[in-house]
Amino acid sequence: MPANAISPTRQEDYPEWYQQVVKAADLAETSPVRGCMVIKPHGFAVWERMQGILDKAFKETGHVNAYFPLFIPLSFLEKEAKHVEGFAKECAVVTHHRLEQGPDGTLIPTGKLEEPLIVRPTSEMIIGSMYAKWVQSWRDLPILINQWANVVRWEMRPRVFLRTAEFLWQEGHTAHATSEEAIEETLKILDIYERFAEQDLAVPVIKGIKPSAERFPGAVETWSIEAMMQDRRALQAGTSHFLGQNFSKAQEIRFASASGGEEYCWTTSWGVSTRLIGAVIMTHSDDDGLVLPPRIAPSQVVILPISRSEEEKATVMAACERIAGELRQQHWRGEPVRVSIDARDIRGGEKTWQHVKQGVPLRVEIGPRDLAANSVSVFRRDRGPKDRENLAIEAFVSGVAGVLEEIQTGLLERARAYREANTKRLGSLAEVTEFFAEPDKGKGMHGGFAIVHVADDPAVAAALDPLKVTVRCIPTDGDDEPGTCIVTGQATTRPSVLAKAY
Amino acid sequence: MPANAISPTRQEDYPEWYQQVVKAADLAETSPVRGCMVIKPHGFAVWERMQGILDKAFKETGHVNAYFPLFIPLSFLEKEAKHVEGFAKECAVVTHHRLEQGPDGTLIPTGKLEEPLIVRPTSEMIIGSMYAKWVQSWRDLPILINQWANVVRWEMRPRVFLRTAEFLWQEGHTAHATSEEAIEETLKILDIYERFAEQDLAVPVIKGIKPSAERFPGAVETWSIEAMMQDRRALQAGTSHFLGQNFSKAQEIRFASASGGEEYCWTTSWGVSTRLIGAVIMTHSDDDGLVLPPRIAPSQVVILPISRSEEEKATVMAACERIAGELRQQHWRGEPVRVSIDARDIRGGEKTWQHVKQGVPLRVEIGPRDLAANSVSVFRRDRGPKDRENLAIEAFVSGVAGVLEEIQTGLLERARAYREANTKRLGSLAEVTEFFAEPDKGKGMHGGFAIVHVADDPAVAAALDPLKVTVRCIPTDGDDEPGTCIVTGQATTRPSVLAKAY
Repeated sequence: MPANAISPTRQEDYPEWYQQVVKAADLAETSPVRGCMVIKPHGFAVWERMQGILDKAFKETGHVNAYFPLFIPLSFLEKEAKHVEGFAKECAVVTHHRLEQGPDGTLIPTGKLEEPLIVRPTSEMIIGSMYAKWVQSWRDLPILINQWANVVRWEMRPRVFLRTAEFLWQEGHTAHATSEEAIEETLKILDIYERFAEQDLAVPVIKGIKPSAERFPGAVETWSIEAMMQDRRALQAGTSHFLGQNFSKAQEIRFASASGGEEYCWTTSWGVSTRLIGAVIMTHSDDDGLVLPPRIAPSQVVILPISRSEEEKATVMAACERIAGELRQQHWRGEPVRVSIDARDIRGGEKTWQHVKQGVPLRVEIGPRDLAANSVSVFRRDRGPKDRENLAIEAFVSGVAGVLEEIQTGLLERARAYREANTKRLGSLAEVTEFFAEPDKGKGMHGGFAIVHVADDPAVAAALDPLKVTVRCIPTDGDDEPGTCIVTGQATTRPSVLAKAY
Repeated sequence: MPANAISPTRQEDYPEWYQQVVKAADLAETSPVRGCMVIKPHGFAVWERMQGILDKAFKETGHVNAYFPLFIPLSFLEKEAKHVEGFAKECAVVTHHRLEQGPDGTLIPTGKLEEPLIVRPTSEMIIGSMYAKWVQSWRDLPILINQWANVVRWEMRPRVFLRTAEFLWQEGHTAHATSEEAIEETLKILDIYERFAEQDLAVPVIKGIKPSAERFPGAVETWSIEAMMQDRRALQAGTSHFLGQNFSKAQEIRFASASGGEEYCWTTSWGVSTRLIGAVIMTHSDDDGLVLPPRIAPSQVVILPISRSEEEKATVMAACERIAGELRQQHWRGEPVRVSIDARDIRGGEKTWQHVKQGVPLRVEIGPRDLAANSVSVFRRDRGPKDRENLAIEAFVSGVAGVLEEIQTGLLERARAYREANTKRLGSLAEVTEFFAEPDKGKGMHGGFAIVHVADDPAVAAALDPLKVTVRCIPTDGDDEPGTCIVTGQATTRPSVLAKAY
C-alpha cells in the first residue's frame, strides 16, 4: 500500500486528484456519449440520500412533485429573449422522429419535425405554458411544484458531476399573486438549501445575491449558495431565482385578482443538481479518497469479519450479524443507523482500503481476539486510516449515534475553518491580483475567497477577467458596512465575495 | 349533481369515460408537446407510491440503482439487428447541439453532430456498452442494476398513461454467468411484478410467455403480466425479458469463467412504466371517477370538517386534528395510515365530489352533531357515494387498518371475479370470431379473454388479425392440458390467452 491511497495527492495535482477520488470510490464514469456521465451504484446511492432529505424538506413546506415533458418546442424557448439567449449555445435539438435505411443500407434520420424540439436545459418555458392554463383566479395561487428530472446543457469541457451535458436535478417552479410572496418563497428555498448543505452535506455555504452578469437568464434576481472547495475555488451549489413578471408576461400567466382586476403572476424557480456530489467530494475527501458525511453515506457503518479458519468464520459471522442487528436498533437524527457487513472473500487489506476510498464513516473490524475481549476495533474515516480504537461492544453500540454526530459536525467545522483560513478582506485591485496569484499553493490550487467592495458594473468584471476571478455573490448574512468599489470608486453598501469558480 | 360524477359512463363510451376519469381526478393532461403528457401532482403522488414499493422490492432482492445517459449513439443501436428494427420507427433523433439566428432572425439548429444521438427508447445498448467494460471475470457477476428514468418512443396515436411519446419507467438490466441464473432472474422479477400488481395495485394478472411475434426486439423469450380492463381488453402491465447471449454478443460483454475460458454473459432486462397508472384507473374506477387501492392512495383517509359558524369551526377543527393524529398512529401493512384534512372554504358538495372523483379510499365527515354523539360519518369509496356509516370515533380509529385491508382485498377480488366472468374457453375460430364480435356490450367494450389452443405460428396471427385480436400470452400457471391449434391443427402443449389489447 502506498503512503496514500490516491495518487496524485491534492497538493500534487488537484484536478487529477478529484478524478482519481471519483474513480477509487466507484461513484461515476464518463460514458461513450460525449459529455454524459454514468452514475454508478455507489454514486447513485449518495444521490438517493440527497433526494430523500430534500424531497422531505420541500414537502414539509407545502410543495408537491409533478412531471413535465422532456422536450420544449423551439417557439416556446424564444418567448423570453434573455432566456433563449442564455441557453441557445448549449441546446440538444431533436429534428427527426424516425430512422430509415438510406441508399447505402445505413440508418438515417427521417420524419423531419415541423418544429424542432429542444431537450430541456431547464423547464421554465414548458411548465409556464401549463401554468398559463391552470391559473385563472387568485384562488388557484400559489402553485408550488417541484420536479425531479434530467436536463441537458451541451458542454464542451465536461467534468464528472461538476459540468456534464446531462445531469440530474430538482427544479422548483412556483407562481404567486404578489411580488412579496414570490420573494419570500425564493428566500425560503435558499434557506432550505443552506440548511441542507450545512446540516446534511456538512458543506458550509455563503448565501448571497448574484451580480447581474451572473443572473439566471431572464430572472430579476438570483440568489445562490457558494461553497469553498479544497483547492480554494468557489462552487455554486444551488440557486433560487426571483423571476418577477418576466416569464409570466412572456407566457401569459394571468389571474383575476381578489379585487377584480387581471394581473400577471409573480414566479420563482430554484434548483440543485448532481453537482452537489462533486461539492461533497471536493469539500471533505482527503488523499486516501472519499470522505462521506454520515447523513448521506449509503452505509454509515461497515463491519469487516476477520477469521482464519472455517470454524472461526462461523462464530465471527454470527457475532457480526448480532452486532449489526443491535446497531440497526440505534437511531441517529431520527433514522435507524445504516449498517452493512462485508463478508466477501477477498484480501483484508484490499477490502479495508476499498471502504476507506469509498468514504464509509465508520469501519469496524471484528475477529476472534476482539470477541474474546468482548470488544471491537473501530476506525473513523475522519481520522487516519490506521487510527484504531478498541471499544467494548456494548459501549460502541450504545454510543454509535453520538460518534456519527461527532463526525458529521466535525466535518462541517473543519470545512468552515478551512474556508475562514482562506478568506481575506482586501482593499485594492493590487491586493486582489496578488491574492489570486500566490504561486506556492500546489498545482490547481487557487487563492481563496476575497471579501472586497465592488460595484455591480461591467468594469468590475472586465478588471477581474484577466485574473480568472468573478464576483460570486454579495452575501446577505455578511456585514452591512458600506465602502467604495476598488475598480470604479462607486459607493457600495456591502462587500462581495470574489473567487475563482467552477 | 348528476346521477354519476363522470359523463359518459363506462357503458356509454368507455374510451371517453377513461379520459374523463383522468381529468376529473386531476391525474394528468396532454401537453403542447405532441404525444407527451404532464403528470399532475395527484397522478405523480400515485407514481411515487408505486416507485417506493417497487424500489424496496428490487433492493430486497439484491438490486441497486444507477443512472445511464439519456442518449444512445446511432451506431450503438445498430449493433443488434432485431433491436434496432423494433425501435427505428419511433425514435426521437438529436442532430444538432446549438441554436443560432438565421438570416431572417429566427433561431435555427446549428452545430451538426457527427453522429446522430437517439433519445433512449430503452437502454440495453448504452447500459450494455458499460457492462462490457465492467465485466472481466466471473467474480464481477452477476450485475443487478435498475434505473428509474424517462424514455421516448414516438407515438402517432398517444393516450395518456397508456401510450405516450415520453413516459417514466424503471428498467432493470442484469448480467449473469449462466443461462440458468439469467432465466431465474427473469422469473424472479416476473414474480415481483405479479405480487406488486395483485397485492399493491389490486390488479389481478396472468403471467405468461409472449408468442414470438410479440417478443421484445432482440430477446430470446419475453414474459409478461396481462390484466383485463373493464372494457374487457387486455393490458400488458409489465415485461421481463431473457435476452440470452444476443445482446452480450452484439456488445462484447465477455468474462473469464471460473474454469478459465472466455464466455459471453447471459443478460436480462425488465420494466414497468407509468402505464400502470392507466391499468389501475381502468381496473377499479367507476362512473363516479377514480377508485384507488389504499396501498397506492396518496391519502388513505380524508377528513372533511363540517361547521356552520366560526365558533363551531374552531371546535370541529380541533377535533379533526386530534382524530387525524390518532389515525396516523395506526399502522396498516407496516406503514402509518396516511390522513389529510380538507379544511378549504368551498361548498361541501363540491368538496365531497372532488374526493370521490379523486378516489380517496375513506372519506370521513365530522360535524358538531357527530362530535356530540362521539361518532364520525364514514364513506367508503368502494361503496356507493351516499353509503354512510356512523361509527364511534374510537371504533373507527382502532378499526381503520382493518377497513383499509378490506377495501384493498375487496378491490382485488372484484377485479378477479370480473375477469373470470369474462373469460371463456373456446374451441374453434368460429367461436373466437363470435366471442369478440358480441355487439351488445356498449361502446368500446370488447369480448374478453378467450382461452384457446393456438400454435406460435404466423398463420395464427394472420387469422386473428381481422378480428383485431392477438395472442396475449401462454400462461405459465394455467393448465398443462395439451390440445390442437384452432387455426393450423398443430399440436400444442397448453392453451393461450387471446384478447383485444391496449
